[in-house]
Amino acid sequence: MRAGPSQEEIRRQNLGALLRQVHLRGALSRAELTSSLGLNRSTIGALTADLSAAGLVREELPAGSAPREGIPGQALRRAGRPSLVVRPQSERVYAYAFALGAERITAARVGLGGQILDRREAVRELDELSSVQHMVRQMQRPVPRDAYCIGAGAATTATDRADEPLGAALAEVLGMEQPVSIANRADLGALAEHTRGCATDAESVIYLHGDVGVAGGIIAGGRLVTGHGGYAGEVGHMVVNPNGRPCACGSRGCWETEIGEQALLRAAGYDRGDGAGGGRAAVLAVVDAAARGDAMAQAAVRHVGDWLGFGVANLVNIFNPETVIFGGTLREVFIAGAAQVRSRINRNALLASRERVRLRTPELGEDAPLIGAAELAFQRLLADPLEAGAA
Amino acid sequence: MRAGPSQEEIRRQNLGALLRQVHLRGALSRAELTSSLGLNRSTIGALTADLSAAGLVREELPAGSAPREGIPGQALRRAGRPSLVVRPQSERVYAYAFALGAERITAARVGLGGQILDRREAVRELDELSSVQHMVRQMQRPVPRDAYCIGAGAATTATDRADEPLGAALAEVLGMEQPVSIANRADLGALAEHTRGCATDAESVIYLHGDVGVAGGIIAGGRLVTGHGGYAGEVGHMVVNPNGRPCACGSRGCWETEIGEQALLRAAGYDRGDGAGGGRAAVLAVVDAAARGDAMAQAAVRHVGDWLGFGVANLVNIFNPETVIFGGTLREVFIAGAAQVRSRINRNALLASRERVRLRTPELGEDAPLIGAAELAFQRLLADPLEAGAA
Repeated sequence: MRAGPSQEEIRRQNLGALLRQVHLRGALSRAELTSSLGLNRSTIGALTADLSAAGLVREELPAGSAPREGIPGQALRRAGRPSLVVRPQSERVYAYAFALGAERITAARVGLGGQILDRREAVRELDELSSVQHMVRQMQRPVPRDAYCIGAGAATTATDRADEPLGAALAEVLGMEQPVSIANRADLGALAEHTRGCATDAESVIYLHGDVGVAGGIIAGGRLVTGHGGYAGEVGHMVVNPNGRPCACGSRGCWETEIGEQALLRAAGYDRGDGAGGGRAAVLAVVDAAARGDAMAQAAVRHVGDWLGFGVANLVNIFNPETVIFGGTLREVFIAGAAQVRSRINRNALLASRERVRLRTPELGEDAPLIGAAELAFQRLLADPLEAGAA
Repeated sequence: MRAGPSQEEIRRQNLGALLRQVHLRGALSRAELTSSLGLNRSTIGALTADLSAAGLVREELPAGSAPREGIPGQALRRAGRPSLVVRPQSERVYAYAFALGAERITAARVGLGGQILDRREAVRELDELSSVQHMVRQMQRPVPRDAYCIGAGAATTATDRADEPLGAALAEVLGMEQPVSIANRADLGALAEHTRGCATDAESVIYLHGDVGVAGGIIAGGRLVTGHGGYAGEVGHMVVNPNGRPCACGSRGCWETEIGEQALLRAAGYDRGDGAGGGRAAVLAVVDAAARGDAMAQAAVRHVGDWLGFGVANLVNIFNPETVIFGGTLREVFIAGAAQVRSRINRNALLASRERVRLRTPELGEDAPLIGAAELAFQRLLADPLEAGAA
């Protein structure tokens, strides 16, 4: 309902749009920027100069341009100096990203442009903050003196999608004034695959993440569905089996009671009954056993694959997504049980929606939530490059 | 990813924003427009002049200002001429709206500003287009000669949310060049309640519409969730009961097999078994019988209310909506079975999401989809007032 933007807002938008282009696509010539942003050459020049002065981009000769000038035929066609390219200052401007999983903590230093400059991993222990602190210290050592950190983001398993105490605690570990941005692993997996993975061309995406529980990151019309209080995406607590098992949430027959790690282990006879002994390794063991011909493991994969397809069919009817991505341990379950997943979707989902949906595994692999956490950290910079990025 | 808008785009945005203000809020003073749009007085003056010249708004003395000037005390405090108000030209600029329901066709002529200038209703017959044609002729007769129609919209029961043949056929009936905009009744109910009804302050809304089937109009982050091909919102085909009845869609246990009109009539013993004898009147008869103490009708309302709450709980977990609205015959089922609905939501939905959700009936009543169809027609005008509204 607000009116059009002011000149200053437009300049900020344009700076952000240019920086976002090189952040996502890498080095680009001024001509490419002119055409993709729909701005004239002099505006691109002025914006580039501002971003260069702030240390966010630099202009340089395109890779391979010098040798080519040595070839007589090329030199004739490319008279004068070659066009400069605008490149993000990936070594100088970076964010910290964390993925606090059920079993492991992953941490990375990610440069503007999305390069992972450093990456560490640790088994998750009770005192997760001291693990994070240790990893951050290791990563801080080799950082060049003129480099600066523009923020940090973290992916968590929490239902509470804006965990303020954790954000403040992580900021203290990092010595930052602003709290670290926190989001759910599935939301950040969706963000990462939509930004840099298998769904960059899709406006409507569901990213499912399985571990102990199941969560969904949902993008509709190009934007993350967060809900009224930030709690959207709890697809693991959609009830699919009214006569099913009790769920830890207090309900019964939730989707995660049928497709979570414990459901697969139970069906395969691996469940020790004490709720322990799960985890990614156990899921892989069942999938491997099924591949080797173990009949009980095969039946388990088929059973869980059927319930996986059952819930996906519901989501396909509700969202009509272009792409559904199976992340976390659901990646392995989907690959092993793809026939059951597809068969159930064919039975339960409406033709118009199911014939358009692509079923995928994360192009960014297990690091999708980690990369999403870095993108979360970069969002403030991309919204207002000179304010947020001031060195 | 595109860069900031041009001067001409900003002017268009500003014209649209001003017109949208008076369309939604009615007559507003220049001072109110200045403050709500965040533009200065001279810009508001120029925009108002452009919209006046195009015949979309007019400036006039506020209602009641003339008599007040006659009161000596008032005249002292309100020296000079009173501030003019900008009012939409509701009698002069209008849209046609249609709601093609399972049983009835409703048609209206709706003025800019949302006033229903004329409204007609007919029982739906096999040849729906000739009914529409008849109603349009009746409504066209009293239209002033200087008035003009800016477009038309129609709400349908179709799953196919962009029914092009119908849009072209309606345009022919109306003698329009552009096809009539078509959308699903639930999507338009959501749009109407979000624009003018009980959810104007909500960014996250689910509007459920029940008749023969059940459809959902979903607003997330303030925007309608349409899906990849326009088929989103088929919540009636979310499977809630894997051991339930076969559904016409080919699946089994879809939500609409448990909460649709036939489900209520069957549970109440009103089902004649031939699929006929349903409709709104039959639903009301069951609800009335329950209110009068008929035990079987009461049990039916409780049963359907429980399944209604079951599906709503799933949607609450998936979307974390601020408001859920029960439209069509689900309005009556919700009112009669509210205790069961709430109890099931309390059992199945996560605390963080269920404690924030408001359960509502449509403030616009049965006309919500019709009013949404008019809003759909006005969208083109509001996006580009001078281009779309040129007399």
